Parts: sequence; C-alpha cells; structure tokens
Amino acid sequence: MSPKITLELLRQLRQAMKSSKYVSEPIQAYIIPSGDAHQSEYIAPCDCRREFISGFNGSAGTAIVTEQHAAMWTDGRYFLQASQQMDSNWTLMKMGLKETLTQEDWLISVLPENSRVGVDPWIIAADQWKSMAKALSGAGHSLVAVQENLIDAIWVDRPARPSTQLIALGLKYTGLTWQEKVVALRSKMSERKISWFVVTALDEIAWLFNLRGSDIEYNPVFFAYAIVGMRTIRLFIDEKRMVNADVREHLQLDTPSSSELSIQLAPYESVHSELCAICAGLGPREKVWISDKASCALTEAIPKVHRSLIPYTPLCLSKAVKNPTEIQGMKMAHIKDAVALCELFAWLEKEIPKGTVTEISAADKAEEFRSQQLDFVGLSFPTISSVGPNGAIIHYRPLPETNRTLTLKEIYLIDSGAQYRDGTTDVTRTVHFGTPSAYEKECFTYVLKGHIAVSAAIFPNGTKGHLLDSFARSALWDCGLDYLHGTGHGVGCFLNVHEGPCGISYKTFADEPLESGMILSDEPGYYEDGSFGIRIENVVLVVPAKPKYNYRNRGSLTFEPVTLVPIQVKMINTEMLTQKERDWLNEYHRQCRDIVGAELERQGRKEALDWLIRETQPIA
Amino acid sequence: MSPKITLELLRQLRQAMKSSKYVSEPIQAYIIPSGDAHQSEYIAPCDCRREFISGFNGSAGTAIVTEQHAAMWTDGRYFLQASQQMDSNWTLMKMGLKETLTQEDWLISVLPENSRVGVDPWIIAADQWKSMAKALSGAGHSLVAVQENLIDAIWVDRPARPSTQLIALGLKYTGLTWQEKVVALRSKMSERKISWFVVTALDEIAWLFNLRGSDIEYNPVFFAYAIVGMRTIRLFIDEKRMVNADVREHLQLDTPSSSELSIQLAPYESVHSELCAICAGLGPREKVWISDKASCALTEAIPKVHRSLIPYTPLCLSKAVKNPTEIQGMKMAHIKDAVALCELFAWLEKEIPKGTVTEISAADKAEEFRSQQLDFVGLSFPTISSVGPNGAIIHYRPLPETNRTLTLKEIYLIDSGAQYRDGTTDVTRTVHFGTPSAYEKECFTYVLKGHIAVSAAIFPNGTKGHLLDSFARSALWDCGLDYLHGTGHGVGCFLNVHEGPCGISYKTFADEPLESGMILSDEPGYYEDGSFGIRIENVVLVVPAKPKYNYRNRGSLTFEPVTLVPIQVKMINTEMLTQKERDWLNEYHRQCRDIVGAELERQGRKEALDWLIRETQPIA
Repeated sequence: MSPKITLELLRQLRQAMKSSKYVSEPIQAYIIPSGDAHQSEYIAPCDCRREFISGFNGSAGTAIVTEQHAAMWTDGRYFLQASQQMDSNWTLMKMGLKETLTQEDWLISVLPENSRVGVDPWIIAADQWKSMAKALSGAGHSLVAVQENLIDAIWVDRPARPSTQLIALGLKYTGLTWQEKVVALRSKMSERKISWFVVTALDEIAWLFNLRGSDIEYNPVFFAYAIVGMRTIRLFIDEKRMVNADVREHLQLDTPSSSELSIQLAPYESVHSELCAICAGLGPREKVWISDKASCALTEAIPKVHRSLIPYTPLCLSKAVKNPTEIQGMKMAHIKDAVALCELFAWLEKEIPKGTVTEISAADKAEEFRSQQLDFVGLSFPTISSVGPNGAIIHYRPLPETNRTLTLKEIYLIDSGAQYRDGTTDVTRTVHFGTPSAYEKECFTYVLKGHIAVSAAIFPNGTKGHLLDSFARSALWDCGLDYLHGTGHGVGCFLNVHEGPCGISYKTFADEPLESGMILSDEPGYYEDGSFGIRIENVVLVVPAKPKYNYRNRGSLTFEPVTLVPIQVKMINTEMLTQKERDWLNEYHRQCRDIVGAELERQGRKEALDWLIRETQPIA
Repeated sequence: MSPKITLELLRQLRQAMKSSKYVSEPIQAYIIPSGDAHQSEYIAPCDCRREFISGFNGSAGTAIVTEQHAAMWTDGRYFLQASQQMDSNWTLMKMGLKETLTQEDWLISVLPENSRVGVDPWIIAADQWKSMAKALSGAGHSLVAVQENLIDAIWVDRPARPSTQLIALGLKYTGLTWQEKVVALRSKMSERKISWFVVTALDEIAWLFNLRGSDIEYNPVFFAYAIVGMRTIRLFIDEKRMVNADVREHLQLDTPSSSELSIQLAPYESVHSELCAICAGLGPREKVWISDKASCALTEAIPKVHRSLIPYTPLCLSKAVKNPTEIQGMKMAHIKDAVALCELFAWLEKEIPKGTVTEISAADKAEEFRSQQLDFVGLSFPTISSVGPNGAIIHYRPLPETNRTLTLKEIYLIDSGAQYRDGTTDVTRTVHFGTPSAYEKECFTYVLKGHIAVSAAIFPNGTKGHLLDSFARSALWDCGLDYLHGTGHGVGCFLNVHEGPCGISYKTFADEPLESGMILSDEPGYYEDGSFGIRIENVVLVVPAKPKYNYRNRGSLTFEPVTLVPIQVKMINTEMLTQKERDWLNEYHRQCRDIVGAELERQGRKEALDWLIRETQPIA
C-alpha cells in the first residue's frame, strides 16, 4: 500500500480557500467530513471527498486542512491503515488517545486570531455544526458555510452521482402500500401538530415509497429527498430515473388527480429552495419536523420558530417495527441464506484439505451460493472472511496482500450477508476444520454463553437494548475477557444492514425501547490480536414472552432467532454449559435441521443436507 | 391530612409578581423549583419555598403560578400525597403520564402573548434555565431572573438559614489534610489550564476543608461557597460560626501567612460580587470551572468565554474514590452499625410476640441502638420502617396515621442508616418473624439472586455502573417481575448518603466509570402493591478482582460487601440458588459472624451475639 501523493491537491485546495470564486473572504481552515448529504453510513464514490484529498479510505475520518497543516482524525480501527494511505503532508490524529486534541482544540491551537473555518453545510450535520461553531466562536474564530464544495471544485474526473434504476416493491414484500404509510405518517404528524416533515435519510425515503435503488453499494437506496405535508407529497429525485413504467405506475404519476396522495416530482437539487418556499408560507405556530442528524443546510432552511428536531423520525420508528409481511420475508430470506451457508461449509470441508481455498475465494464462493437463491439482489456488506490472526481484525476485509489460505489448523471466521427482495441477512460463524485447542474452545464457549444469554433473555416491555449488553459479556468478564464492540444493531428489511433506532450496546443510551417486531443482530465476540477472532452472530426477532408472572401488566419480550445456521459443536467445551444453555442449543439446532433441512431437501442439495444433519445432532 | 389553605398566599404572590418593588415590569408567571442555591437533595426549612406556597412537602416537585393558575409537577411517588396536601387552588400535573404537559408546554398553552416568566436565578440550575428559556423564547415569551425571591418576600416568619456549629475532622478520619486536597485540586486545575474553580455543592465544600456541620437534617454539611484559585482560597461562610477555636486552628485562620494555602473568609452572600470581581480581572484565555448543575446566578456571573462547565467536578470525583483511611472508617462504621442492627433484630424477636412494637417504635429502637455506638452523630436519612403493604411504598416513612404493628404474619422491611464520624451507613433488610409464604420466599429469592449477581460481578476497569443494573434484574425478569427504582447509589464517608458520580441504574448514562475505592449501595427489590415489599441492600466497596485472564491488561474489578448484617435464611427458597450463590451467601455470613461477632463479644452484647451466630449458620 503506497500513500497517495497529495501535495498538489492540497495546494489547489488552499488556493480555493482563498479564491473569491468560492468564498467572500479567505478561510483559514476547511473541514472535510466523511459523509454525504444524507448522513449515510456507506457512501457513493462521488461523495468520497475525504478519501480523494487524503488517500485514506476507512469508513470513519474527518480531515481538516489549514494554510500550514493537514490533519486527519480517525479511530483505533484505522490507525495503521490511515498511516499507510496518507503521505507526509498529513498528520494522523489518533482519536481515543488521551494526548490527541479534539478537532476544535486543535483548530484553536493552530489558527491565527479571528480565523474563518469553512465547511460544506450539506455534509455536516446540524448538531455537529452547532458544537463546532460554539467552540470556535468561544475562541474568537467563526465557522462559515461554504456553499460550493471545495473538494468538488478541485476534483477533476469526479464520478457522477449514481442514478440507478429503481425497483417498485409490491405488497407481497412490503405488507403496506406507500399510500398507507403516508396516511400513518400524517396521523402522527397531526397528533403532534406538525405541518411538514422533511425526509432526509435515504433508507426512510426508500421505505416510505416502497422503492429500492442501487446508488450506494450494499444498500438498496437511491438519492432523493421528500417533503410530506398534510396535503402534498414532494419527491426530490433525478427525473430521468422516473421513466420506468412500473415505477410510474407504482407511484401513480400518470393518474391525474388532485388527491392528497398524489406525488409531485421535483429535481433533487431543488429541495433547499422548495423547503425555503414552504417555510416562507408557514403560519406563526406551524412546525416542521426534521431529523436532528440532517444536514446543517436543510436544518437551517427552517426558521428556528418553525423547526422541530427529532432524534428518531416517525419513519425510522415505523420502519424498525417490521409488519407480518416483512417478518415473513425476513424469515424466508434467512432460510435461503442458511441454505447457501450450509452449502458453503459442506464445500469448504471438502476443499480445504486440498490447500486451495483462500479468504477471498471462500468469500466469493459464499456469494456464488447466495446468488443461486430466489430474489437475490447482492451482498448487504463486504464479506469479512478471515483466517487465524486476520479474524482478530474486527472490520477485516480480505485483500490480495493479506489473503490467507484456509487450513485445518486455524480458526475461520466469516461474517457475511445478502440483500434479497424479501429481506436482508447478516450472519457470523466461527469454525475450525481441524481440531481446536482447549483454549480456543474455552473462549468460543464464553462467547456462545453470551450469545445465548442475550438470545434467551426475558425482559419487560419498554426495555432499551443497551440494558441487555452486559448479558452478552458476563461470561467473558468473569474470566477477565471482553470485546470492544457493541453486541447488536437493527437490521433493515431489504434495506440497510445497520439501522436505528434500536441496538444492543454499552455505547449508547439514546436507543429506543425494544418492541415486538423489531429485528436486531446478537453478535458477541472475542479477539486475540495476532492469533484468532471469534464471533457468533444471529439476526433475532423481538417477540412477546410469557413468563410465570406479569408485573403491572407490562408484558415481557424475548428474542426468536431468525438466522438458522448451525453453531459448530466442535468449537464448544460442552462441560462449561449449563443445562439451560444446552437446551437452548439443542432446540436451536432442531429448528435449523427442520426448517433449513426442508428447504435443502426441496432444492435437492443433498451434500449440504447431510452436512446440516450431522452438524445439528443434539449434545448431551 | 388536610390541605394547606393557599388562597391568600397566592394572592400575595400574584401581587408581588406585579410589584415594581421586585420586578421592573410585571411577570405573568413565577416558577418555584424545589431546591436550594446549592442544588442539594435534602434542603433546610428556610429553603422549603415550594412547600410554603403549596402545602406539598414531597422531596420532588416544581410549582408554577400564573395570574390565573397554580400548578404543581411531581412524579408518581407523590401523586396521592400532593393531592392530599394541596387545596383546590392547585392543579396537580402528574409527571410520567402521557397526557401531562411539560412545564414549558403548559406555560405556552396558558400564557398570553409576549409573557414574562420569572424565576429566582439562585434556585434554578443553569442547564434548566437554558432549556426553559429556549422553549419560552421559541413561543414568543421570555424567562427573566427575579433577584429577590418572591416567596421569601411574602413568607412571614420564614425560618433563618441554619448556622450550626462546625466540626473539624482530623487526619484520623480524613486521611488527607485539606491543604493536601487543595494542592491536588490545583494540580488538576493546572493540568487543564484552569485559573479558578467555584465550589457550589455543599458536600464538596465539607469534604475539601475536612469540616462538617448540621445545617441540613441527615446531611453533615453547612452553607458555604468556596472559590479556589492557584494562589488564593476564598471561603464564603457566615463568619459568626468561625469563632470556634478548633475550627480556626484547623483552617489556620490565625496563623499569619501569605501562603497560597491561607484561607480568606468572606460573607456567604458576597460570593456573587466576589466572583464578578475575579472574572473582571481575568486574562483573555483564562478559564473558570463551575459545575453544570450550579445555579444560573453563579454560572452567568462567569462570562461565557471564561466559563468551563463540568458535569462532575474534580472534587466530586476525588471524594467518590475513598482513600485507605476513609475505607477503614467506613468499614468500622458498618461494623458498629451491624452491632446495632443485630441488637435490633434480637430485640424484635423477643418483643413482637407481645404485640407492642410498631413501625415507629422499631425505627426509634434502631436509632437508640445506633446512638450507643462510638462516634454516632445522627441518622443518614429518615428510617423506612414498614410492615406488610407499607413495604410496597418505596419511600415510605411511618407516620402516626399509617403506623402498623409488627406481627408474626407480615413481612417487615427496614431501610436505615446513620452518620458516624468515621463513616455513613445505609442498609436494608427484609425479614419475617413468623413463617413466610412460598410466594414471598420465591420473590425474596429472586431479589437475593439479583443482589448477589451485582455483588459478585466481575467487570473490566472502566466499566460504568449502569452496565451492571440488568444483572440485578435478570432473575426477576425471567419470571416477569421487576422493580421501578435504580439498583445503587454512591455513598459518602460521613457525608451525604447519596452522592455522585457513580451509581447502578438503568436511568442514567452519564455516570463515571467505577474505580477501586468507590463505595456504592447494591439494593434490588420487589414490591407488590397492597401486600408487601422486599429489598436487600448492602453498601459495597469496589475492589480489584483477579480473574483467570487479563484482556489487554485492563484489569478487573468486583465488589466487597461493607455492610455485614445477616440476610434472613428463613426468607430464602434455597433450592432456587445455584451453587455459586450458596457459596456467596455462606462466605458472606461467615464474615458477618467473624467480624461483627468479635465486636459484639467485645461490647458484651450477648443476646445479639447469639442471634448473629444462629442467623449465620451455613446453608447446604
């Protein structure tokens, strides 16, 4: 990996920072955040501005360029990668280390008095703008919105914004028409006396209109905004992609009507001016909902008296609670996904002794098996296929220069998932094709105990997911072990594999309470640097539980596994399990055998079926 | 309980709200929060302004009086009490119910346009001021600081602010001189480039200067402020109480010196003007630390550019981590406290069959036994002594009209504690003097399992207490049960029985990580309305643990019980305990027998010793 040469690019950027073409007065620093205008987790190539200017392409990082310096803030996952990808013009700011200054403190320490710091208001979230502006003004500087993005200004051959073909999803996949979703949204708006709702998150727009795209790899979304009023629906989108007859029919674009359910199309770029026009016409007490994670540009377009910021939009909340059709679809998708993984493991068992299977070829094979399944669309995230020490790198992605061969001697961890039209999958299995050591089995068993502790937990209605996080760690903690990531995230239904507003993590407190119908991952792990990684991940569905008592009539919840792929018994020290844990495992394997077995049988995949039956024998 | 007649008081208050004697322009609403100028949890009689105007004397509540309305916000613990104590001039606003408006929304719904809402800036915390001011200004109103408190203005015979005698604590109790504490504080200040620190919390001032008072019942604190600079120490306090020679000597007030460790006394009331004077002389980059919970008045006295708000002050953090002398003192205090409780339980066993013991007399007897112990100062909170259904009222305090007799038929719950010069105690035991039902034992055993799960938990250094909260609930949750309060709070050392910055609760996320030397309570419970309450509370010390492994060299922590009072085996369904839980209980009882037994022997308290030995027999 050789670093990107950035001297000339930085010179051009610094020139732009002083050019009256872009700024009324020169700015002394320019901030380049990671995201796009929708605060997406994964971004399109045209939005990889921080990578363009620095060479660093990790998923998290913020660059700041001043007249003298260029600095990059990123976290522990990326220290090595960032230092390899950036040349000597860049200083790496290691977040999480005590001695590392925050962006604000660093700016204050390097800037001359009364400096102006610029940022693209479309890329920075309103709350980040606010805290940065406050810190800077406290030190006599100011944060200024630079309307034209200065990276785009110097980016020759910047890729075009994707405008992929849209798919309209019928009721069979969605359970609700988009019209029903709009009506439900409006009823929440009128309950809270809200006149307009500005939809900025791409997965919320896709979910609301029952449309999918492929503008961003792994995420079946498309670039658009929407503004929903009590009588109008405006969709801001590249009109070229609206030529497809299916989509026009689905959105009823050609059914002339003055109905409150007719959609007005407008260019993607016009959202700001349209929002300003709407706000200019508001009555004194009218309110506009917008996510508190939306861009500064759109947030500021709504005058403060009319602005109602919400941490989780009503769409985010509705989307998280899957309806019966979506639950059925997710279950079907996971059965197909399990078929593909049974095939993969059966194939690996045969092929590994030949010494020809690598992390990359195994990942490719997994994709090949998945692609044979009905309604397969693509992967839901880059496959983590890792052998031995590579398994300890939590966000590992095999590259030719790191690619290891699968053997009978090392642990193999594969974390993978796919998009099917009926659902999104995400599953991790950790297996050994030879004989694991006693220590490896011990660690695996602690992780399994944690996985079961969450999966089998019974908890009251209204409980937030973060309260379950310690259950996943307790067995590890008892022996002085731990893992440094959260335990679970929400999973979309043929949507983003990571979605809010629920999760299971020690890191957040602002998650919404778990509700029956929510779908999350349960994925504790254990990682030993330089040696191996273990993770056991199922997607689980929140379902009602019926314990002995019912305190204050609150009702209880628990989880039902949606992922149905055997957990390798060879890796378990069964003596360490309690009877309750054994019962859980045997019942889980019975379900895998019955449900996935039937599908393997139906698809005539004999070898995988044999493998499944062997791997799901009950333990004593 | 008959309500307070408030018509005339409200008339007077409304007159004051319009009087040019107090306000430049009339105000249309006046907010009366609960607290004092130090944001104390318990307050002195002179600060019970909300009670004075409304009659409602619960520990939490905010009153707002407008020209037409008088409304009281309080939480579920106090709905009944508030409705009984307030007359028909008052509207009860039940917090936590969906239909209840927030104070802000209510004000906006009742106020005429462009209203002015007044509040005493000394009583409202700066962050509360900020959010209230923002909500009001968003609706066209304004929040104004009324310098003279309008309740005080109409309060004939308002009690004087207490000015009790101070006690100077020597090294034998504190482990560190106040001079050492000042030096340590300054080193933290200089580390963070802070010029001044304004100390507003009463327990922080008491801890810093190794002084105690009795201005507030149960809390050994005294009214004062302090401002610590790098070269000066100012103590704002009623100088009349500084005549005591011990205290003068302790503070070295009569040792002429220009040292950085000499204390300048100033009147309590002059803190604001002194702080303003200090701020006027600050250099451009100088910073002043103040708690983000401090009063609006003092916070606003520091210009924004110089203000550095901190959620937990360095004193709060230092105070929470007890030094070896304090730990030794806390242990001694708990042994003495256990002696008193062993005596109480032995006495109750004898007396209850006579039918003469009531909740009140049992509480009095507990206080009597405690008062016989060395260095006893007083109780640390009002004793919760509750029989049968009264036990289900979590903050119950026996009153003549609710007083029940202890019998052989009902569960008895006693939650009590004391202040000794060497430490503060807080312990809850739930006992049955006859034969508990199978259901009562079942519930008690779930609570005990939760208590042990926390007490025996091993967790990594850096873990926050809230991550342990679910351990206390897991056994209850499994059966559909729960309790609606937190699991633990920090405990001061001869200071407030509730102190920050650590705790064990599902309700907070802003707690500081647990550290070796911190002392907390562990007190899960279960409450069945109208029938019984169960709580098992120990004070526990955070200590290093030595599990098998040591992931990333982080080290592990666990708890050591400081409270040493037997847990009634009669209440336990021992078949429901795991072997690990039995071992914990037997080891705990062995410690009670050995340590408290030796002290009972030394004090010649034979009956209590016999009781202790009988109650600490190992279970099979």
